[in-house]
Amino acid sequence: MHMFTVTLNKTGGMPLYEQLYQYIKEEITRGRFSPGEKLPSKRKLAAHLKISQNTIETAYAQLQAEGYIRSLPKQGFFVEEIAKNLPLRSSPKTSSLPSEYSLEKPYSKKWQYDFKTNIVNTENFPFDTWSKIVRSVLAEKREKLLHPLPFLGDLQLRGEIARYLYAYRDIQTTPEQIMVGAGSEYLLSLVIQFFGADCPFAIENPGYDKIQRIFQNHHLPIDYINTTQESLDIKRLSRSTAKVLHITPSHHFPLGCVMPIQIRRQALNWANEKDDRYIIEDDYDSEFRFAGKPIPALASLDQNEKVIYLNTFTKSLAPSLRISYLVLPRHLMEQFSDRFSGYASTVPGFEQATLAAFMARGHFERHINRMKRIYKEQRDMFIQTVNKHPLAKNIAIIGQETGLHLLLQVNLNLSEKELVTIARQKDIHITDLSSYYHEDSTDMPTNTIVLGYSGLSLDEIRQGINLLLDSWQQAIGK
Amino acid sequence: MHMFTVTLNKTGGMPLYEQLYQYIKEEITRGRFSPGEKLPSKRKLAAHLKISQNTIETAYAQLQAEGYIRSLPKQGFFVEEIAKNLPLRSSPKTSSLPSEYSLEKPYSKKWQYDFKTNIVNTENFPFDTWSKIVRSVLAEKREKLLHPLPFLGDLQLRGEIARYLYAYRDIQTTPEQIMVGAGSEYLLSLVIQFFGADCPFAIENPGYDKIQRIFQNHHLPIDYINTTQESLDIKRLSRSTAKVLHITPSHHFPLGCVMPIQIRRQALNWANEKDDRYIIEDDYDSEFRFAGKPIPALASLDQNEKVIYLNTFTKSLAPSLRISYLVLPRHLMEQFSDRFSGYASTVPGFEQATLAAFMARGHFERHINRMKRIYKEQRDMFIQTVNKHPLAKNIAIIGQETGLHLLLQVNLNLSEKELVTIARQKDIHITDLSSYYHEDSTDMPTNTIVLGYSGLSLDEIRQGINLLLDSWQQAIGK
Repeated sequence: MHMFTVTLNKTGGMPLYEQLYQYIKEEITRGRFSPGEKLPSKRKLAAHLKISQNTIETAYAQLQAEGYIRSLPKQGFFVEEIAKNLPLRSSPKTSSLPSEYSLEKPYSKKWQYDFKTNIVNTENFPFDTWSKIVRSVLAEKREKLLHPLPFLGDLQLRGEIARYLYAYRDIQTTPEQIMVGAGSEYLLSLVIQFFGADCPFAIENPGYDKIQRIFQNHHLPIDYINTTQESLDIKRLSRSTAKVLHITPSHHFPLGCVMPIQIRRQALNWANEKDDRYIIEDDYDSEFRFAGKPIPALASLDQNEKVIYLNTFTKSLAPSLRISYLVLPRHLMEQFSDRFSGYASTVPGFEQATLAAFMARGHFERHINRMKRIYKEQRDMFIQTVNKHPLAKNIAIIGQETGLHLLLQVNLNLSEKELVTIARQKDIHITDLSSYYHEDSTDMPTNTIVLGYSGLSLDEIRQGINLLLDSWQQAIGK
Repeated sequence: MHMFTVTLNKTGGMPLYEQLYQYIKEEITRGRFSPGEKLPSKRKLAAHLKISQNTIETAYAQLQAEGYIRSLPKQGFFVEEIAKNLPLRSSPKTSSLPSEYSLEKPYSKKWQYDFKTNIVNTENFPFDTWSKIVRSVLAEKREKLLHPLPFLGDLQLRGEIARYLYAYRDIQTTPEQIMVGAGSEYLLSLVIQFFGADCPFAIENPGYDKIQRIFQNHHLPIDYINTTQESLDIKRLSRSTAKVLHITPSHHFPLGCVMPIQIRRQALNWANEKDDRYIIEDDYDSEFRFAGKPIPALASLDQNEKVIYLNTFTKSLAPSLRISYLVLPRHLMEQFSDRFSGYASTVPGFEQATLAAFMARGHFERHINRMKRIYKEQRDMFIQTVNKHPLAKNIAIIGQETGLHLLLQVNLNLSEKELVTIARQKDIHITDLSSYYHEDSTDMPTNTIVLGYSGLSLDEIRQGINLLLDSWQQAIGK
């Protein structure tokens, strides 16, 4: 038996049992108490250290729970054999931790004029209405908000989404086919997992870089299908082994175009040719069409349960709300639900109930209409400013009817890289269209710039566009 | 030129332009207007139909936007060639849609006594305090809540989590290493994607079925490592090709045991042997330990940046809040952040700000302490009821020190299946331990039942356990 002496601080903050526990743990860890060695009995140690047996019992129990000592009936407590710590590896980690801001790249640089795409104008969000609904939902539903939700999401919210899709996107569906989730990235990830590791996917080239990354992160075979303002390379699609095609028919990103009915039909026909072919329709900012009525969703033409429809409230309400949804073909629901059964709904019940009430009371529709007016003013200011500029005749504006970005085709004998570099020198952020191409395509443009305007005020748009066009004008010496 | 006559309803609800658009679209779709055919000029059609040229212009513009017709400068509008609809496939979908409740299996059956695991008691959630913080966060932060969040989550919340981990789990970390996400399933999925498609993973056998399903859904090679109350088969682990090991050291699910220090050391040593080996520590209900102080996390022993720590507020607060977090080793942060850069934070900004304030004001700590008392009362009632029953001497209770479930080893010459079936006849839901085993193991028990008690009141626990034990007693004819 190994009696020992430890000086306990009887006036300090740490309980006596914890001091004793820490001391013995340290001794065992450092090998000063050997494996198999017997510890003093509680009675003897208590007498020796002049503390109560209870204190020792608590310390021994904790050591036993963590596996440092073992109790043998009628024999006492014994030190356990503890695996030695292996030495650190020969090349210890440098642990250079990038700073918060270098980790969060999208937030790293503040530009004077940031024409990046996919900024959502949140200044006009009906915050007071939303807050009022939050308070009333809290007061009415109370503890019910804490209960686990169905995997597919709050049933009332799914009902509101079904009504919205019928009224605005010509889609007939039921709440049972709708799944609510924490963002399109999450939902797309589930769809990818659903079709499996060996399923070849096809995506548009050019396309949204984030979509490419999601597919790449799942380590799947990807075919890139060339896309232009007017077409999608259906022949290449048919030659490829792809089974599932991801497209943005209502508003192509980045090309800004609407997919014509011919191509929609061809894409659906491609899917109809084989049982295991499907189309993922990403309808990300279809709400904001400035001329005429909304273009019906591809899903509304689908008579054969071939289209998986994906949309988000991130663009139409606010990025930080993080609510997206999927509409799944009826015949896939059971298999989909089986595969992910046991998964929890990823959107807090509280947010789902608030959004359901917001929609039911007509606020979502009002907000969309209001934002359409505001975004249209921004777009009009953008177009007017370009058209009034001396360079106007050298610049074609593309994709102005829908969504929150457009393209400038700039005929000034400047390359895309030059156009971007000149802008950067004036602290203006714009993006060259080529950078959205995954692989070279004969259709690839050489002088086209992608600009979003939704994050800027009317004055900023006017000043920013004038500064941009002036800087190009200077560069060509006119 | 193809002049046509259409009867427009000038008093009805649908705008004239939309009636005209629908009519022409239908004619083109059905092939009654042929590809290449010229449409009447706006002027002529307006005179013919006695409506304004504006109406016709709007209808033509919409048809053009959707690709049904094409405008040729100075020539007019022409019908486009539209791909024919392929016939429906020979075997049209039956479209039998499962009902809401059959899709949502966990919610399908209401038991009289449901001893399922992983129910969270939400009755004692401090709802009024939470509501008060929600209201004050809304009032103070307002529109700021709508802004996009850093990918890793709200910085203040990550600071609170770092403080909590230091105080309660002995883990020293920084907010820069913490990522907040919409549930452990989502975060684990990111970790799996991070290590890649060819990375072999090892998980515990038996284990939590949901964890197995997440790995299976990513279509990855998985090794199942046998686990018992006292050990993890490190030899098998070393023989396997596994690079990343997922374990639940603080409270094994379903075995209910704490991983002893020897095995923790061995697991860390296994990881330290090679540069690309890591351990995912799932610390899912470590908050609820009823005897002594909390067992320090495995991550607190890690001196070599080998442990990826995962925990959730789902168990400690409420399932519908859906907030979990990861602590990543410093040297992985840059690569991790690169891979998922551009992804958005999956938890609404509003929930993150509320939880941060809830923690900062000490409510989380108070709530945990309160729930520990309540769960302990439930557990004590469970144990007392078993011990008072005539069958007590035939039943061993396992795993009672930690967490919200425990095991009964039932020595009555009844198989696990029989034990479960007898319970089912009395409308009592219990689970046999064998069902958590992925593959047979020589360590597999033959007579052990897993029971959660957190969803039941004290009375229900007493009545349910007595009914359960009575029914077994009857079955063996005692």
